[in-house]
Amino acid sequence: MRVLLKRLVAASPPRPPALNSIGVFVCPRKYEAERAWRRSKASMLAPDLPDVWSPLSPASSTLFSPARHHDNDDLKPKIINGKAIAEEIRLGIASEIRQMKDSTGKVPGLAVVLVGKRRDSRSYVRYKVMACEEVGITSILAELPEDCPELDVVNAVSNFNKDPSVHGILVQLPLPQHMDEEKVLSAISLEKDVDGFHPLNVGNLAMRGREPLFIPCAAKACIELLLRSGVELIGKNVAVIGRSRVVGLPISLLLQRHHATVSTIHAHSKNPEDITSEADIVISAAGVANLVGRNWLKRGAVVIDVGTNPVEDPNSEHGYYLTGDVCYEEALQVVSAITPVPGGVGPVTIAMLLSNTLDSARRAYGLS
Amino acid sequence: MRVLLKRLVAASPPRPPALNSIGVFVCPRKYEAERAWRRSKASMLAPDLPDVWSPLSPASSTLFSPARHHDNDDLKPKIINGKAIAEEIRLGIASEIRQMKDSTGKVPGLAVVLVGKRRDSRSYVRYKVMACEEVGITSILAELPEDCPELDVVNAVSNFNKDPSVHGILVQLPLPQHMDEEKVLSAISLEKDVDGFHPLNVGNLAMRGREPLFIPCAAKACIELLLRSGVELIGKNVAVIGRSRVVGLPISLLLQRHHATVSTIHAHSKNPEDITSEADIVISAAGVANLVGRNWLKRGAVVIDVGTNPVEDPNSEHGYYLTGDVCYEEALQVVSAITPVPGGVGPVTIAMLLSNTLDSARRAYGLS
Repeated sequence: MRVLLKRLVAASPPRPPALNSIGVFVCPRKYEAERAWRRSKASMLAPDLPDVWSPLSPASSTLFSPARHHDNDDLKPKIINGKAIAEEIRLGIASEIRQMKDSTGKVPGLAVVLVGKRRDSRSYVRYKVMACEEVGITSILAELPEDCPELDVVNAVSNFNKDPSVHGILVQLPLPQHMDEEKVLSAISLEKDVDGFHPLNVGNLAMRGREPLFIPCAAKACIELLLRSGVELIGKNVAVIGRSRVVGLPISLLLQRHHATVSTIHAHSKNPEDITSEADIVISAAGVANLVGRNWLKRGAVVIDVGTNPVEDPNSEHGYYLTGDVCYEEALQVVSAITPVPGGVGPVTIAMLLSNTLDSARRAYGLS
Repeated sequence: MRVLLKRLVAASPPRPPALNSIGVFVCPRKYEAERAWRRSKASMLAPDLPDVWSPLSPASSTLFSPARHHDNDDLKPKIINGKAIAEEIRLGIASEIRQMKDSTGKVPGLAVVLVGKRRDSRSYVRYKVMACEEVGITSILAELPEDCPELDVVNAVSNFNKDPSVHGILVQLPLPQHMDEEKVLSAISLEKDVDGFHPLNVGNLAMRGREPLFIPCAAKACIELLLRSGVELIGKNVAVIGRSRVVGLPISLLLQRHHATVSTIHAHSKNPEDITSEADIVISAAGVANLVGRNWLKRGAVVIDVGTNPVEDPNSEHGYYLTGDVCYEEALQVVSAITPVPGGVGPVTIAMLLSNTLDSARRAYGLS
């Protein structure tokens, strides 16, 4: 098997800031964030509110908080800063990993399987590996050639399944066309499925009252961004655009657990803008540049743009630039809050991968 | 363990109709239905259409078939006859079971676990057992007393897991309050989970491209009723009212596989009628009598009413009558098609339980 294995042992996790001359921590704001970073699983999965219908005095007419923004309001949309939120989360993770190392001598490990030389895949993997290093997670990168047989990839995954220093395994998608992604992903053991794509994880995410071992990273990122921005979810109309198993499906399922009223739109939906333009929150994960124009959005809506679409541009450094699914400039004219691309969902999604890996290591080491 | 086991060996499956005096089958219509009854798994799970977005020439404006019914039309709503559809399906199942018995000497077996003396539960179990007998499925009923320990129920399930003559196990819900339903249901082996409530089944239902071993019966029944009534699903706006794991959740997931645009409404939804009144199809599984009034429905909508709600009525034979979630008389004034309660979804749901049990037996006996 031609596998290039790189074990990238992270430098010691960043130390906490030194006490200053009067015995007070420097950067207290950041280190407050460390303690506050961790959203409990219960809050990420939301309380299991009983479904008690009251048709005679419906919630519908009395409980709906009116939109905060009307046509005559002077809208100053909030730009939701994913980079800053991700940094806060990473600081919290780094702090926990230091404690883990101090008490057990061990740190979490993430294995990444990369097949071929796709430039975008290599970039994504580089970001993930760098993020691991930053928080003190040991990353192991298995690089396989484009033309290797599928069995080599399955074997690489199987070896990581057995390695007790590895707590999370991710296979960078897409795989070369001659491989069956389903089969390769199925080889990842449930306990190390930090992407949360295993059907048992998806089933447990779908069923209120049950707990998946891992929640898919992009779905977690969307909820983090919304909750940290003070956006209420219970009873809100949310349009999710896209239904992929990586993004759209788990986002829809997780939002339902947060008691939002979710409409899932896809490429076969007729008049999707009729639904999105009534939604309090629009989450777009279609992977189509500039799909969502101004007429798709209600005034005052909150927009989370998961799309990261390369657009060719000979004038930019790499020959392309990245843009979201949402026409950003148009949206700014109507929304109350929006995530930019890049710098929105992306960094928080990577932070959630680190968080899932840490959770997995805590389980493996029997830490509460 | 105080378990009363009743093995109800079905009488021989009903024989095909005899040839009449001129050598032609009697009741040809019914026996044509036998051959046509079986919807392939592929058609029940729907084709896996790729999500190709075309934002520049959107499907939205060109492909939407206008509603067939306008305000001035003289609506003659179609009453979808669940009893007749269920009978057709049962005839088909009986025919397959005869063939199975002829070729292997074996028939499918369904085990039902009933705890306590709840009148409604006993009724439901009686219907299921009768339906088994009618098609040639052997049913085994395990009756346990209301006050038995949870472990007795788990043991009953475990024994059925080991019994090779049992291909499906169902535990009649609700269980007494001192029992953990989750724990009891988890004891049912995946291969015999004919209700389809196992999280792995739910995950495989949620993920396009994967196949659950069993699709939950009520969800299958809704699709059967819609497809047999000629209702197109691709791209249609469907409002599902209710999100229980028994009904609402699997219906939403299955409809998404059929490429409908699904909005899932629940007790915390604000202004649910705003969404339902824009839907081409409304499926109500809230369990609230008369929740859905005329103002919740678009003119020409198709309504599938899964609700089966007892309403006290001292004048009726049993002291109550059954009604759906939908105000039937009001709905008749606007809809293009509707299922009645009773006689709509209920009988087809039981037929789907028989179908799942037959599928399980076919798998166990290695039949294609």
